[in-house]
Amino acid sequence: MTNEELLGFTALNSWKLVIGRFDQNLAALTDEQLQKRVAPNKNRLFYLVGHLTAVHDRLFPMLGLGERLHPELDEIYVTNPDGALADPLSASDLKKAWTDVNGKLTAAFETFTALDWLAKHAAVSDADLAKDPTRNRLAVVLSRTNHASFHSGQAILAK
Amino acid sequence: MTNEELLGFTALNSWKLVIGRFDQNLAALTDEQLQKRVAPNKNRLFYLVGHLTAVHDRLFPMLGLGERLHPELDEIYVTNPDGALADPLSASDLKKAWTDVNGKLTAAFETFTALDWLAKHAAVSDADLAKDPTRNRLAVVLSRTNHASFHSGQAILAK
Repeated sequence: MTNEELLGFTALNSWKLVIGRFDQNLAALTDEQLQKRVAPNKNRLFYLVGHLTAVHDRLFPMLGLGERLHPELDEIYVTNPDGALADPLSASDLKKAWTDVNGKLTAAFETFTALDWLAKHAAVSDADLAKDPTRNRLAVVLSRTNHASFHSGQAILAK
Repeated sequence: MTNEELLGFTALNSWKLVIGRFDQNLAALTDEQLQKRVAPNKNRLFYLVGHLTAVHDRLFPMLGLGERLHPELDEIYVTNPDGALADPLSASDLKKAWTDVNGKLTAAFETFTALDWLAKHAAVSDADLAKDPTRNRLAVVLSRTNHASFHSGQAILAK
């Protein structure tokens, strides 16, 4: 393996670890537990799972990986705060959406070469990437990994 | 810049973004606000800052970057839970410890080549690194970045 391949795999492992830990915690939650809030007046676990699923689903078009699986989640879990709109999916369907989105993303990331990680994404212009080549696809995936860790830290408080 | 240098810089940016956001939030907190808990019966913000400072300080020997700056924080903020022992530093001294530790770490990371990121650290054996070369120094820094994001998500709840 070359150094650049190894750096890509190491970064991908970071995503896989965070998603894998979230998977384990989510699998252990009952439908009732998913309705718990992380703290008084803060988001429900259900909302956080919907939010992360929607934000990760947006990566398909952003990284050029095909069509979104669940665009219907944005309005409920990204545009609006918790409680504004009814949950459109059952707990088991939401768990399935989470698994489908992350499974398909991870499978795509596993095929990435160093050049794929360094390539342009849909939210940066050619000129901006040329000016700052760290605004690449790896930066996006590491940012989403940190975002998932951020909400994982909140979700754990509901235990 | 080579691809491998660029991958290293992109990953380092992820660390810098997370630490930078924490810096900004921490700078805005008064001494009184630092005593707030992230949720009822959960850690105080003060404890979380001490915890992250201690865990990051441990990176100096782990990554071969020299002596620790604040080994005295481990017993209070790593070994014991919040409330077990008195805070050994004032709020302003703790803020300074956080800034000193992360500033010195980031300055060291900025000198890392691809080979430095891929090198062995003190918590992995030569045999284990040979078996799984992703258990390198980059993996450690990305893990600490996710850990800082995890607690940042909790800290924000105290706002």
